[in-house]
Amino acid sequence: MAEQKPKFVGKLEWPVTVQLGRGMEGAIANETTIGYVDGEKGWLVYRGYNIFDLAEHSTYEETCYLLLFGKLPTKKEYENFYMKLVGYRAVPKKVFELMKGLPKEVHPMAALRTGISILGCFDPKADDVTVENDTEIAIKLIAQTATVAAAWARIRKGLEPVDPNPSLGHAANFLYMATGDKPDDFTARVMDISLILHADHGMNASTFTSMVINSSLSDLYSTVVGGIGSLKGSLHGGANERALAEIMTIKDENDAVRYVKNAIEQKKKIMGFGHRVYKAYDPRAKVLGQYSQKVTQLKGMENLYKIAKKVEDEVIAAYGERGIFPNVDFYSGTIYYALGIDVPLFTPIFAVSRVAGWCARVLEYLPINRIFRPRAAYVGAMDQKYIPIDQRK
Amino acid sequence: MAEQKPKFVGKLEWPVTVQLGRGMEGAIANETTIGYVDGEKGWLVYRGYNIFDLAEHSTYEETCYLLLFGKLPTKKEYENFYMKLVGYRAVPKKVFELMKGLPKEVHPMAALRTGISILGCFDPKADDVTVENDTEIAIKLIAQTATVAAAWARIRKGLEPVDPNPSLGHAANFLYMATGDKPDDFTARVMDISLILHADHGMNASTFTSMVINSSLSDLYSTVVGGIGSLKGSLHGGANERALAEIMTIKDENDAVRYVKNAIEQKKKIMGFGHRVYKAYDPRAKVLGQYSQKVTQLKGMENLYKIAKKVEDEVIAAYGERGIFPNVDFYSGTIYYALGIDVPLFTPIFAVSRVAGWCARVLEYLPINRIFRPRAAYVGAMDQKYIPIDQRK
Repeated sequence: MAEQKPKFVGKLEWPVTVQLGRGMEGAIANETTIGYVDGEKGWLVYRGYNIFDLAEHSTYEETCYLLLFGKLPTKKEYENFYMKLVGYRAVPKKVFELMKGLPKEVHPMAALRTGISILGCFDPKADDVTVENDTEIAIKLIAQTATVAAAWARIRKGLEPVDPNPSLGHAANFLYMATGDKPDDFTARVMDISLILHADHGMNASTFTSMVINSSLSDLYSTVVGGIGSLKGSLHGGANERALAEIMTIKDENDAVRYVKNAIEQKKKIMGFGHRVYKAYDPRAKVLGQYSQKVTQLKGMENLYKIAKKVEDEVIAAYGERGIFPNVDFYSGTIYYALGIDVPLFTPIFAVSRVAGWCARVLEYLPINRIFRPRAAYVGAMDQKYIPIDQRK
Repeated sequence: MAEQKPKFVGKLEWPVTVQLGRGMEGAIANETTIGYVDGEKGWLVYRGYNIFDLAEHSTYEETCYLLLFGKLPTKKEYENFYMKLVGYRAVPKKVFELMKGLPKEVHPMAALRTGISILGCFDPKADDVTVENDTEIAIKLIAQTATVAAAWARIRKGLEPVDPNPSLGHAANFLYMATGDKPDDFTARVMDISLILHADHGMNASTFTSMVINSSLSDLYSTVVGGIGSLKGSLHGGANERALAEIMTIKDENDAVRYVKNAIEQKKKIMGFGHRVYKAYDPRAKVLGQYSQKVTQLKGMENLYKIAKKVEDEVIAAYGERGIFPNVDFYSGTIYYALGIDVPLFTPIFAVSRVAGWCARVLEYLPINRIFRPRAAYVGAMDQKYIPIDQRK
């Protein structure tokens, strides 16, 4: 590694010497050209492109192409890829039939995990784990995770899933399948941007889960099912719901000041703030904060944004110097809520987007695969003598 | 760490300096008192008890208690735990109903993954991720993974699942549910021993998968579903089937000599040999090798064992000095095959056992949880300029 470069950029000479903390902090899972989180600068990069540019100019479909294939597509390539995604949207009817047998009140991520696991059972090529076949499955999974998540949004309310609409883009079609209504262009674009922003984010827990699963040469459905299971946790994808729930308990800006003061005094974690990698402002929160302001204004929910902004200001005033800023989860909930999206769909939306990053990263690793197998440090007893049960005390 | 101790034994002062190889080789995930693999000595230890002692004297139920609770149970504790497992064996009927909707030809590990995911949807307490509740779910999952795996062994053949038999121990009942016949005592005991041997094995890929998933504070079903997905891969749980398949292509002992010679000349990996951690003889293979000999003799399949043993002798003669010995997968397949167990059940049996290790390890980590989040080293482009699609070449 060149001397002046940050620690997590540049080719490695394996083995590398690292300072390893709990939770694999400081460990390096692999080398990648897919994405980079610069925690000091507050940058997120996909394949060399800054997330701000992609959020402004790109679409989720184009971003998926970029993540999977390493470059922005030509017009022709884009059209082919787009149409492939459209063509893959529908899933075997049997998948919904089985999902309808699940309890309606189950955690929507448990339903999504189960739905994708069922989906994998209906792909006769699931176990062909070549790069070529897995690339095709990746495109399928990007299309169909949206379909399955949207279907559950319907099934849980006792409604029929809505067939995909080939005239709509990925984000708009997802909202259409989830709600039954075609979204207006602005709403569709906000969802599109949110999907772009959530598509990949370094070696986060769900991505790492996917890497570990796929490294045993398991199939891509198992890999994504594991990613969903990991994302489900309240420390990961589940955090946006919890952040919104907290904000919703606050009456107004004055109350926001009290809320933060209280949390600081009681040393309570404030949901939606801080990140292991970012010590600067999370770029995704920057974009989402702007859209939160726009969307809440448009929907007559200015108060929601004002409260959130006040919470942000107060937290930064207190902790900004220590690198505590809003993360991606802080504003996404306010946007989805203002757009009228059901709260139980929030974490599934995260999966609908992140499936692209999971797939891109495992596909990159597959040709140079090495199974992930760390060690644990044994600190237990040794040389215990087995005593027959009748003689135990 | 004290100086004379092996590297992976003893308390750590985080952060620790490690030499990190690809696939997280050399990384330390956590401190544990659950189990230890001494690769140099060829030892496997659960909670300080040598696997040889446990295989000889213990039962799978007792081993589960040991792994979960850190000590061998008293008679009273054993009886309570045993009866709890018996009481948890049956699963909601709806689980099988939905599994019957899966294609019969699907990979049995995909069916098991889906079955456990469905099962989780029917546990209204799945999302209570306290140590207390997760401990209860762990006991349920140890009981019910066997039930679901056995049910699929039936469903895939168009047969009805068999209700658990409370008069049988865990291993015997599993075989009974899978085949519809009560096994003889010897067969049941061989299965019991195999379950003991597979219950835990350090920070292998499926265990590590489980740790990463659970570390986001996801639910234990998601955790085990991910473990199953990881174990499914051909580099992990899938290896026992492949090892047997290779052995089955060999006609006799002379042919075994030719087979190994051939593989060495062509530098082909010989299935069932070598292990990242063991550089001595895998203790599990030692026990299983002895039982392979006994079982094949009993069932009139001596030739199968003789061929396997010859392959072993030839491989050790060639590579023993380099630390290449049979691993757990080499003999387990021959035993299951000789016992008349369907090949598609081999990897599920691994899961039926290992679920104990997955659960014990995540339960140990939960009170001191820190989300697993390594980094990747970015070696891709930087500062790419977004060019509108019409201007791209």
